[in-house]
Amino acid sequence: MQKVFFKKYLEVKMPGSGDNTGYVDRLKEKLENLLNGSVEISFNLYEKIYKEFEKGKGKLTCSLMYDAGYHLLWVQAGDVKDCYGIAIDIGSTTISGDLVDLNSGKTIDSATCTNSQVKIGEDVLQRVFYAFKKEGRDELQKLVIQDILFIINRFSERIDMENLLGISIGANTIMVHLFLNLPVETISTVPKTPIVNAPGFIKACEIGINTNRFARVYILPSIGSYVGGDVIGGILVSEMWKKDNISFFIDIGTNGEMVLGNKDWILCASGAAGPAFEGGSIEKGMRAMEGAIDDIAYEKGKFRFHVIGGGKPVGICGSGIIKLLSELFLNGIVDRRGKIISGDKVDITDDVYITQNDIDSLMRTKAGANAAVSYMLDSMDVNINDLDKFYIAGALGEYIDIEAAVNIGLYPDISRNKFVILGNTSLKAAKKMLIESEAHKVLNDIRKNFTYMELGEKQDYMNYLEKALFLPHTDLSLYPTVAKRLDSKD
Amino acid sequence: MQKVFFKKYLEVKMPGSGDNTGYVDRLKEKLENLLNGSVEISFNLYEKIYKEFEKGKGKLTCSLMYDAGYHLLWVQAGDVKDCYGIAIDIGSTTISGDLVDLNSGKTIDSATCTNSQVKIGEDVLQRVFYAFKKEGRDELQKLVIQDILFIINRFSERIDMENLLGISIGANTIMVHLFLNLPVETISTVPKTPIVNAPGFIKACEIGINTNRFARVYILPSIGSYVGGDVIGGILVSEMWKKDNISFFIDIGTNGEMVLGNKDWILCASGAAGPAFEGGSIEKGMRAMEGAIDDIAYEKGKFRFHVIGGGKPVGICGSGIIKLLSELFLNGIVDRRGKIISGDKVDITDDVYITQNDIDSLMRTKAGANAAVSYMLDSMDVNINDLDKFYIAGALGEYIDIEAAVNIGLYPDISRNKFVILGNTSLKAAKKMLIESEAHKVLNDIRKNFTYMELGEKQDYMNYLEKALFLPHTDLSLYPTVAKRLDSKD
Repeated sequence: MQKVFFKKYLEVKMPGSGDNTGYVDRLKEKLENLLNGSVEISFNLYEKIYKEFEKGKGKLTCSLMYDAGYHLLWVQAGDVKDCYGIAIDIGSTTISGDLVDLNSGKTIDSATCTNSQVKIGEDVLQRVFYAFKKEGRDELQKLVIQDILFIINRFSERIDMENLLGISIGANTIMVHLFLNLPVETISTVPKTPIVNAPGFIKACEIGINTNRFARVYILPSIGSYVGGDVIGGILVSEMWKKDNISFFIDIGTNGEMVLGNKDWILCASGAAGPAFEGGSIEKGMRAMEGAIDDIAYEKGKFRFHVIGGGKPVGICGSGIIKLLSELFLNGIVDRRGKIISGDKVDITDDVYITQNDIDSLMRTKAGANAAVSYMLDSMDVNINDLDKFYIAGALGEYIDIEAAVNIGLYPDISRNKFVILGNTSLKAAKKMLIESEAHKVLNDIRKNFTYMELGEKQDYMNYLEKALFLPHTDLSLYPTVAKRLDSKD
Repeated sequence: MQKVFFKKYLEVKMPGSGDNTGYVDRLKEKLENLLNGSVEISFNLYEKIYKEFEKGKGKLTCSLMYDAGYHLLWVQAGDVKDCYGIAIDIGSTTISGDLVDLNSGKTIDSATCTNSQVKIGEDVLQRVFYAFKKEGRDELQKLVIQDILFIINRFSERIDMENLLGISIGANTIMVHLFLNLPVETISTVPKTPIVNAPGFIKACEIGINTNRFARVYILPSIGSYVGGDVIGGILVSEMWKKDNISFFIDIGTNGEMVLGNKDWILCASGAAGPAFEGGSIEKGMRAMEGAIDDIAYEKGKFRFHVIGGGKPVGICGSGIIKLLSELFLNGIVDRRGKIISGDKVDITDDVYITQNDIDSLMRTKAGANAAVSYMLDSMDVNINDLDKFYIAGALGEYIDIEAAVNIGLYPDISRNKFVILGNTSLKAAKKMLIESEAHKVLNDIRKNFTYMELGEKQDYMNYLEKALFLPHTDLSLYPTVAKRLDSKD
């Protein structure tokens, strides 16, 4: 298997009488013979090569990258086996990093931090507007680079930075543009065109990552403006791209992209899930942190709930909200249209409650996701029960109670063994790209098979949306297990 | 013919509804289709591409470089045809530059200046010692870069710097190392190994040439430590590398490298010509500048001479010195052993004279060159009269009187139509490398066919040297036309 980042130990003959070919040239020749391909050696490494050559008396370890051809990244005297990479997911709220041992392929440490851009705007669109001015763009880039440096520095306690060869980034298109300090005007106005879809490999020092100047930063490619590296990464990690059977992929994150397809075709749409679940438009909504109710049940006229950190609840996070709506519905506190039967507010504690407005917002979000699934399936003439797998990505997806999500009609009511929780596919794909050259080829193939559907432009999509504005749906026959539960409650 | 630096005008579709592929990606796709090869686009160009794309409404001129694959250097809105390169010869005393119109291949302007490193040391070895310290290296690089910027700025009056795509450098190995700020310790001590022989293409901004950051600097490759890009360039320009017949090449410059060969083999040696001719070890020697005697004749007991600039002579330059020795010899003022018959000094004017020490120095230099020619011919079993051409390169070579050079035994006494004056082959080769991709391939082939002979290590070379310490040589039968002249003088 061709690795993307790897080391190669070699012994090069020292110069001698009648053999005074230059240091760089003799290393290059040896490397090209060993690797059976051309090796690009940057001018900046010439002096370093000479010094390590002399230090190691011709015994050298080369850090290399493969991308069509080979590129020499660094040289070290002697045989230095340690070889690391960092996979990073730049989420709009959280940045996560995995330190990967590139010899074993194993993650040996992880770190996360809040995306400091949040202080400019919780909503990504606020950041986009802020970035319209060059100073704003500069500031936003600086913030995210600082976060990434924070994560890298965390890992620097475990490894010698000289042995860090590559940093791989998974993120949506806007996050990538803010990271690279590229203009965002064209992404946010029709026809919503990014500056670049596939930035590929960039020298770390060129974007201000100087902890290890020579390392290369790889960025997962996107398609158009909506289908970011995070979505493409999901397709890669789920492996739906190589199956005969058709699968569905949903990222319950801030954007809620969805993908339907198999090895022959891939259809993608954006369902506008997310925001309401992440707490943005819910009065007492909050992110999953200390003080958030993340699980809740209604029993004998009372709420029982779990609070992150165990203290007094101050709000409710995404997984708690979905569970809450499901409980309110199953217990008849909210009707099938999503209306609170008595009053316009349900109290959970003295401080935490949910309002009719909150529920309306939730209904719109879940209906958007549901309608998108149905619309995509219908347009490809695929029956929901013929799906091979229903992949769920995103941090929130890991914590959502599947039964609750089915109850409110966010997830389809299909055989439960078809649900596969993938976790942070952006991060996992980024990790894959650090290791397997084959995965880079696959990504390009996936991009070629891709069709993007702009749901907002479809006339009949509104019909799907209206039908989904019920709990779980106007057509209860699509939700047999929910129907059964409602029957048992009656 | 594949060009090295060129422009390509293209019209790329603007993004539109349902077609929102990124700006960089759509340009790349179009370019790769047109050129039928992969195009590398640096991250630093992304924003520029977007801006020119919008400005030109998809009508763009791309500046490109070819080196195995294509590299995008710059983009401009609209159709901009102007396309220039600069060829530079970094001589140890003089730096020469040619501004080349890459569309026509013609030189449209030239500029020269003194290599400012001269103030650190006239002798290259002095500079090498100076460069042993990092600060010395930094200073020497700064000096030569300033000289090159001086030349580039001269041309900036004629062209828009945005249309300068490439700078090509021909120089000997030490000059290249000082230019790139690379260590020189290993070139100057056995086994005399350079840091790099083939630096290839380097971004202008990486070595401090910021007049045009994106232009690429190409450096002619060398072999080992003695055979610099200037010599390799000479082989390229003379085209001896592709002939069936055997030719000889001599660079009458500071180092006096010599080459014997044809399409099948190339033998090179260093003959230590130069220094004495260039005026270094001659008491009244000087460079070819105002006040220098550059031509001289002895008639009826008197000297007649030509002075550069027409004023009072203050010294004598290389071409004048060779002519002077020839005249002294033919007129019996100096004998065949190179000794002044009466006294130890010959006066030319009140201020300008030549001493026995000067002549001894000249004799050693010319004997070195002569012995090297003979030794190389004998070792390959080639008769001097079977040479197809005798190529003479170097600024001094352009001004040397061939008959005078034959008279003193610096040049062989062969059919005069075999002498070919090439001029500055380093500069001419640099120019060729700006234009023809094929020439880059040829250079690599030449380097593979190459053998370097270290004359100083050959025991029997001393015999050749001793025999050459006569005017023109101990064996007068090798110089029939000189013998005839001597006869006619008697």
